[in-house]
Amino acid sequence: MMYITRRERFNAAHRLFREEWDDDRNMEVFGKCSNPNWHGHNYTLFVTVKGEVSAENGFVVNLKDLSSIIRSRVIDKVDHKNLNVEVDFIRDKLISTENVAAAIWNELEVPVRSIGAELHCIKLVETENNYVEYYGN
Amino acid sequence: MMYITRRERFNAAHRLFREEWDDDRNMEVFGKCSNPNWHGHNYTLFVTVKGEVSAENGFVVNLKDLSSIIRSRVIDKVDHKNLNVEVDFIRDKLISTENVAAAIWNELEVPVRSIGAELHCIKLVETENNYVEYYGN
Amino acid sequence: MMYITRRERFNAAHRLFREEWDDDRNMEVFGKCSNPNWHGHNYTLFVTVKGEVSAENGFVVNLKDLSSIIRSRVIDKVDHKNLNVEVDFIRDKLISTENVAAAIWNELEVPVRSIGAELHCIKLVETENNYVEYYGN
Amino acid sequence: MMYITRRERFNAAHRLFREEWDDDRNMEVFGKCSNPNWHGHNYTLFVTVKGEVSAENGFVVNLKDLSSIIRSRVIDKVDHKNLNVEVDFIRDKLISTENVAAAIWNELEVPVRSIGAELHCIKLVETENNYVEYYGN
Amino acid sequence: MMYITRRERFNAAHRLFREEWDDDRNMEVFGKCSNPNWHGHNYTLFVTVKGEVSAENGFVVNLKDLSSIIRSRVIDKVDHKNLNVEVDFIRDKLISTENVAAAIWNELEVPVRSIGAELHCIKLVETENNYVEYYGN
Amino acid sequence: MMYITRRERFNAAHRLFREEWDDDRNMEVFGKCSNPNWHGHNYTLFVTVKGEVSAENGFVVNLKDLSSIIRSRVIDKVDHKNLNVEVDFIRDKLISTENVAAAIWNELEVPVRSIGAELHCIKLVETENNYVEYYGN
Repeated sequence: MMYITRRERFNAAHRLFREEWDDDRNMEVFGKCSNPNWHGHNYTLFVTVKGEVSAENGFVVNLKDLSSIIRSRVIDKVDHKNLNVEVDFIRDKLISTENVAAAIWNELEVPVRSIGAELHCIKLVETENNYVEYYGN
Repeated sequence: MMYITRRERFNAAHRLFREEWDDDRNMEVFGKCSNPNWHGHNYTLFVTVKGEVSAENGFVVNLKDLSSIIRSRVIDKVDHKNLNVEVDFIRDKLISTENVAAAIWNELEVPVRSIGAELHCIKLVETENNYVEYYGN
Repeated sequence: MMYITRRERFNAAHRLFREEWDDDRNMEVFGKCSNPNWHGHNYTLFVTVKGEVSAENGFVVNLKDLSSIIRSRVIDKVDHKNLNVEVDFIRDKLISTENVAAAIWNELEVPVRSIGAELHCIKLVETENNYVEYYGN
Repeated sequence: MMYITRRERFNAAHRLFREEWDDDRNMEVFGKCSNPNWHGHNYTLFVTVKGEVSAENGFVVNLKDLSSIIRSRVIDKVDHKNLNVEVDFIRDKLISTENVAAAIWNELEVPVRSIGAELHCIKLVETENNYVEYYGN
Repeated sequence: MMYITRRERFNAAHRLFREEWDDDRNMEVFGKCSNPNWHGHNYTLFVTVKGEVSAENGFVVNLKDLSSIIRSRVIDKVDHKNLNVEVDFIRDKLISTENVAAAIWNELEVPVRSIGAELHCIKLVETENNYVEYYGN
Repeated sequence: MMYITRRERFNAAHRLFREEWDDDRNMEVFGKCSNPNWHGHNYTLFVTVKGEVSAENGFVVNLKDLSSIIRSRVIDKVDHKNLNVEVDFIRDKLISTENVAAAIWNELEVPVRSIGAELHCIKLVETENNYVEYYGN
């Protein structure tokens, strides 16, 4: 079993808030991350998949295929977007790093299987001081 | 003459666009950076000042004083903000990295003098692939 | 189960040595790390906790709370300190990266539980070329 | 149980290809990585070992010993070399990052035991966008 | 006057040697960098251009245009290539980092002018421990 | 004229203080950096030299020679040392980053000339958030 990781990046706006709460309560719970005018980040996404190494080509997966899946299923939908209002696969969720990572897992789990590997970990880095990791359950 | 640099960071939303242009023309000129729903970045700001080294304390400037000025004059106004609509010192400008860097220079030039140094360079990093540097003229 | 990591930093002096050995024997075993006049490092600390994602706020833990615990229990006690002589929670130990990481685990395990998560990993980076990871047993 | 990681680096040339295929087929499968005139990388190698912390010296292993093993068994054989034609421990293999990582594992597993620890992970970083991890089976 | 920098990367093989010298003399002068079987690097290229900020779009240059020029004039010719034998614009030169940087300057100086800016600096990073900078004379 | 930079690293203890002041006054001026029990850093040193590129070997200077000079004149004297009490070339100075950088300049200016180049800049990085640059006057 070999693990291979592909890094991709996206820049997006977001806001932490609950619609049913007013701005004051949102600011109280989420602080400046709840600014109604949005803020944003350079997100770095590490997608780790695992599998056997092919005797024919020496790969777990062809990284071009993996990158292509990540781009079409995730990056194209989130890069230079507003995560709260424009992303089909994370609607109706609090846009925390945790929830975005889990949503990306759901978006990639099946396609990764189609190229012969198993999704192992989604690591999503929001700033140099914090990141989350999700292993699917 | 010694040069000393302080790094600070801020996370913000922005959009490249001209109000007098419609969305189509803005997208044509600015591409995805003109998304009407905003996007955002982790900006890294490097402020370089120059001056003589004090015989008394071995410093060009006390970094606490420099950091304090950068925070009160810049970071507090831009961090977790929307650069297009919430920042007093860069209103009415295209929010390009170039214009933000020049606006930060204008915000810091005089205060840096008040702690006995001269502002030398504003370096503003928008992504790992691009940054601007401004030396005041 | 989601894993979230907070990075904090501290700068400290230390020395590897055993009091019951003379300087020669200490230098023989620990090399230049045993310099009797001390040396020091910029330590980078990664604290990973795990837990369920809250439906209410989208968090495993509020990072402000986690950061606050790490600062009061660890960073305030070690930053700009001499690890061998000034830190209550690692007295009477060889100040190796391994022992410091385990001591930080002991300092954080209970407080992390008080904010509803479980401590998963202490990663302590001493230089760009070496780091340790401790998972609690 | 404590985990300690040592980083080492090497710069090498390589090419992805199968001898029994012609250049066209190799280029079709491996793309530009199959350039017959070679290309190369700055590889970064992270070797993680695990073990008990010694009460005598506070170490899992003495990092000098670990570094010495990695250099004599791996770095000296691959640094400033052509991985396809000059490295005894990875001959007759497709020179993918996966296969190089597994070959490095085989080269280090026994020597690491001789200094009282157990090899845990070989992480091999080829570019800032991709790396593999191997845990020995 | 504003300075803007674009980072691009390429992976290539090379060898330091003079054809009129035998391998022994080459190894004596260039050390392991003269390995006849080649070695390689992940090169990082920083291209800095300078100019006035346009009132219309807030740019010194459109980074898409700058990136496009760097890719067509440099990256496409050197990425996954052997710098000694495959690159038209650096033939018949010792393939030192210095000479590659100067050759890249010559390749970019005129095209950068065609997008309304002036080439200011070519910075070429060969490893984390060394890089060169060239300002055109 | 080409500029080439070599990076070297050292880990050291230090303290900011004036002997003629008591601890209270030192703490007032220098804050926690004046801890009487010392603290320390991983310092990163960038030495930039300039010169013509040799037609014979393609180099401004042979980096082995430059590295050898930096190590014998600086690194061997400061690595794993206490900068306040053990370093001959910076005795009797306030051990600020500024003063250490200027002292390193003095230590390297003549030796760099002996290998046919001119010292251009000493950049000394103390933490990820601050560094100084010195150009010799």
